[in-house]
Amino acid sequence: MAHLVRTGISLEQELLARFDSIIAKKGYKNRSEAIRDLVRDYAVAEDVTEDRTVVGTLTMVYDHHRPQLSERLIEAQHHAHSQVLAATHVHLDHHNCLEVVIMKGRSSEVRHLADQILSLRGVKHGKLVLTSQGKGLG
Amino acid sequence: MAHLVRTGISLEQELLARFDSIIAKKGYKNRSEAIRDLVRDYAVAEDVTEDRTVVGTLTMVYDHHRPQLSERLIEAQHHAHSQVLAATHVHLDHHNCLEVVIMKGRSSEVRHLADQILSLRGVKHGKLVLTSQGKGLG
Amino acid sequence: MAHLVRTGISLEQELLARFDSIIAKKGYKNRSEAIRDLVRDYAVAEDVTEDRTVVGTLTMVYDHHRPQLSERLIEAQHHAHSQVLAATHVHLDHHNCLEVVIMKGRSSEVRHLADQILSLRGVKHGKLVLTSQGKGLG
Amino acid sequence: MAHLVRTGISLEQELLARFDSIIAKKGYKNRSEAIRDLVRDYAVAEDVTEDRTVVGTLTMVYDHHRPQLSERLIEAQHHAHSQVLAATHVHLDHHNCLEVVIMKGRSSEVRHLADQILSLRGVKHGKLVLTSQGKGLG
Repeated sequence: MAHLVRTGISLEQELLARFDSIIAKKGYKNRSEAIRDLVRDYAVAEDVTEDRTVVGTLTMVYDHHRPQLSERLIEAQHHAHSQVLAATHVHLDHHNCLEVVIMKGRSSEVRHLADQILSLRGVKHGKLVLTSQGKGLG
Repeated sequence: MAHLVRTGISLEQELLARFDSIIAKKGYKNRSEAIRDLVRDYAVAEDVTEDRTVVGTLTMVYDHHRPQLSERLIEAQHHAHSQVLAATHVHLDHHNCLEVVIMKGRSSEVRHLADQILSLRGVKHGKLVLTSQGKGLG
Repeated sequence: MAHLVRTGISLEQELLARFDSIIAKKGYKNRSEAIRDLVRDYAVAEDVTEDRTVVGTLTMVYDHHRPQLSERLIEAQHHAHSQVLAATHVHLDHHNCLEVVIMKGRSSEVRHLADQILSLRGVKHGKLVLTSQGKGLG
Repeated sequence: MAHLVRTGISLEQELLARFDSIIAKKGYKNRSEAIRDLVRDYAVAEDVTEDRTVVGTLTMVYDHHRPQLSERLIEAQHHAHSQVLAATHVHLDHHNCLEVVIMKGRSSEVRHLADQILSLRGVKHGKLVLTSQGKGLG
């Protein structure tokens, strides 16, 4: 586990009280953990903007009865520069599947692969989330 | 000015170093101010979710040559529950205007008014920002 | 497959040309599919706002060496009203794991479960994506 | 006014019915106008990503009793590459002001200026919106 350092911050009493009440509602056990999460989120946003290596998950809903869609989904993943680490498939009903594709690469590459997949006919809806490899986040 | 209190937080050395480098780039003079901004943003997000009174600004681009649009924009603002505090108008070119409408009200009311305005023909693009009245943010 | 209907829309020549060029870059084979995706995205956003049943995926990065974290992650999932459909786990390096939890429930319930999980100590970063069950999206 | 062209799109009956019901609620008079708005939003998003010239509005809440803040706000605006077109000021209460700064420039420049302003002590909260100059959006 990484070496912890302590830092002091000053903030307005009323603001601190509001913060404490919000984080309690969200389930945080203490203030430090909540502030660390805000700081980490800030660092991840910078990784994404600066086109560093990130981990992305693409969540999509599609109709698996659509002819040739499965083949095209696999093909798109194989032709991409970004590395697909894993994919999980859930059957929502007779027609609809949810698939989550986990990718790793520069944020621009991961975005490009996501665009290619989402533009396929039969992919109804999708959203990409970019996060971090975890290193350097404590 | 509100009463400042001091609190200590512990976080990983590497994470803190990254935070310091990002905030320097953004122009922060010190760590406390940057963390206060993260905390305030968190509090404003809660005001919006909980449908509290917020301040909203609607930025929109429209063609002022479109017949009757100006009248409809004014009418929409007058029929709304949310209070329109001010509006600023900038001429972008011969056809296009930018207008910023500043509103105050519950977040759901402000959103509703923004939807009504954005749906008018001739309003080309618009985005709503919800922020705080400033009280309780230190 | 759902019954397709045809509708005509009128838009400015220059705007249509820009749209065609953007969607070609993203990989769309035709205009109808791209517009359908915009319309579906709009419908999903409404499901989320109206607190309808949605499918959510929570992507998170955590340190699996953190004592008791795995137990707490499992416990949080079991105590929730929302139904966890599946979870996928990827080893990023010696310390860091990526986990994607796929949930189904009202958007408020899914959000609450995500908050509980993200507030756990050792969960470094996470983001929630809300999408649709696929029914009614064509 | 720009030359309108007509294009046909095919989509699922059920999806179209949902779209019609959502846009009626938002106040749209017809389907074409709603789809044009989705298409324009798509085009603006590309302008922002590709670092083209955009119009930005920065909404911020600050305490005007904070020593030297007004001077620093003016200085920041004058030293920036992006052009500040206008600023509107609203008094929220005895302490708090809302100010909207309207800027024009490449999206990266506008973002940079917004960062500099938001990092000033006494600026409590702010959000940047990027939109279009209106040309080419019909």
